[in-house]
Amino acid sequence: MELYDGLPVAVTGGLGFIGSNLALRLAGLGASVTLIDGAIPGCGANPFNLAPIAGQYELIQASLDQPHLYEAALAHARVVFNLAGEISHVQSMRDPERDLHLNTLGQLRFLTTLARVNPGARVVYAGTRQVCGRPRYLPVDEDHPIEPADFNGIHKRAAEHYHLLLSRDGLLDAVVLRLTNVYGPRLAIGVPGQGFLSAFIARALDAHPLEVFGDGLQLRDPVYVDDVVEVFLRMGIRQVLPARLFHLGGPAALSLLDIALILAEAAALPHEVTLRPFPAEHLRFDIGSYTTDARRLQEALDWNPQIEFAEGIRRTLDYFRLHRAHYLATPAPRPAVLA
Amino acid sequence: MELYDGLPVAVTGGLGFIGSNLALRLAGLGASVTLIDGAIPGCGANPFNLAPIAGQYELIQASLDQPHLYEAALAHARVVFNLAGEISHVQSMRDPERDLHLNTLGQLRFLTTLARVNPGARVVYAGTRQVCGRPRYLPVDEDHPIEPADFNGIHKRAAEHYHLLLSRDGLLDAVVLRLTNVYGPRLAIGVPGQGFLSAFIARALDAHPLEVFGDGLQLRDPVYVDDVVEVFLRMGIRQVLPARLFHLGGPAALSLLDIALILAEAAALPHEVTLRPFPAEHLRFDIGSYTTDARRLQEALDWNPQIEFAEGIRRTLDYFRLHRAHYLATPAPRPAVLA
Repeated sequence: MELYDGLPVAVTGGLGFIGSNLALRLAGLGASVTLIDGAIPGCGANPFNLAPIAGQYELIQASLDQPHLYEAALAHARVVFNLAGEISHVQSMRDPERDLHLNTLGQLRFLTTLARVNPGARVVYAGTRQVCGRPRYLPVDEDHPIEPADFNGIHKRAAEHYHLLLSRDGLLDAVVLRLTNVYGPRLAIGVPGQGFLSAFIARALDAHPLEVFGDGLQLRDPVYVDDVVEVFLRMGIRQVLPARLFHLGGPAALSLLDIALILAEAAALPHEVTLRPFPAEHLRFDIGSYTTDARRLQEALDWNPQIEFAEGIRRTLDYFRLHRAHYLATPAPRPAVLA
Repeated sequence: MELYDGLPVAVTGGLGFIGSNLALRLAGLGASVTLIDGAIPGCGANPFNLAPIAGQYELIQASLDQPHLYEAALAHARVVFNLAGEISHVQSMRDPERDLHLNTLGQLRFLTTLARVNPGARVVYAGTRQVCGRPRYLPVDEDHPIEPADFNGIHKRAAEHYHLLLSRDGLLDAVVLRLTNVYGPRLAIGVPGQGFLSAFIARALDAHPLEVFGDGLQLRDPVYVDDVVEVFLRMGIRQVLPARLFHLGGPAALSLLDIALILAEAAALPHEVTLRPFPAEHLRFDIGSYTTDARRLQEALDWNPQIEFAEGIRRTLDYFRLHRAHYLATPAPRPAVLA
């Protein structure tokens, strides 16, 4: 990682959850950090995320469809971390054109600009497991059929193709990392549509009971944000890429009920976790169980995710208890009276 | 096909090559035909295509991004044939945002409008083999990996996904037909970027020598437009769909050199066919050989393409010799003096 010392890098979506965690780590490594973020409502930008590195980065307030604002900065970047976008599945079903604009048109404009001003640039893109749709088999590897479960998956898939097409032509040198449920400090827990873990953590902070949709047996393998940041960093400076597309998941498959129980215990919730039927709107794009086959990534990096869910969720709750007011508009619950 | 008698149908791209041939056949079957076409420059719209059915159709001059102009018409359509779009690969590489607008945003707006005003409507979409990219094996079936060779393929793939996603949710009842090189009367031979057959036919009409890029050994299986129209019609009224995605190709695999030689003979060209190196711009998205595995379609319809290339190209030349002035701006060549 010493390669990052003094290296000019750019991070799109740098005010967001993963982007800001990446920016913090990059600043710590001595990189010259430029963040590009349009702070688009609903996408999770939060300037407080960057409080620990105030003054140690340049921020360009631009969305991806405004290349004139960021093209000069891109020309000098040695590595580009590309995390800007809308991740809400439910929002993409309500307003698919907005999702197309943010995740496809924005990426097209960004990547063609990057290819023009900085041809051959290494770019590491935050993709999503949602492009695979409802798994045909588990764990899901990179050869799984592509059957996006919602408009968000369709549009993120088109953006994957942009990265791969421009790399085929030598105009970029891209890596696509398909992420599954990422959690940790700076998760946009106050923003709707950021996934069930975001909603769970917000409820746990308010000491509200946790409700799991369905029978609770669906599998996920949540991955702690520090592990994701580590993979982005390693891919950013890897000389020879054994592939351009990698699946990235967490260290263990857990049922939604297990996830809720671990969280409830970590948060010392006084309530039982309850099950409730899927809301129709969510059932529409529910994908059932998903677990990641990350062997390609493990072989490429000789590395595995380090943080178990119980440990990661403990750190996450610690962070949000300290900084709650910067993420949730609701007041903190009054402590229960000790009987 | 008697089901079409009196049936209200809509055809997007109805002024174009395949759309107009389909409209002619539908009118002949007694359907109540509404055409939706924005006559977007470069996409091949030509009002002359409809001369044989003047007065027998309604034309809505609207591009797909203008739903207020066509939504009332869609509400009554029992079958929607969806052929509007940009097919030029080279144009998509020069101006990918235009291609995104026409092939993805336009389709998104069109399909969500259709799903709203006519939920569950049967729609038959003209897809493209280009979404598969350079074939990993021949012939190419529906399970082939998706590796679009150009922006056009990426954007047409997103539109495929729209059809499939909305059908999964019961909002549409869509069929995607992935077409390979289609040729025949009304091909937009005067419009750049409509494929090598279009360019070949235009040159043959001018008695110009034919030049094949590369070694001439690349395979294609051109399909005559009447065969394509037949498949659209059958899919439009088929009650039970065995699948939503079908590959559609021609009756035989031919090398590019064979294709040029057959055309040269049919046109009685006095020149030899010559080979020349691929221009760099075309090499970028050249896919090598492509032949269609159409078994799924054949089993579904118990039908095969009927028109051999030599016969189809003869009919095509006959058509354009009669109507040349409506397709080519250049004057007809003077007949060679008989020595």
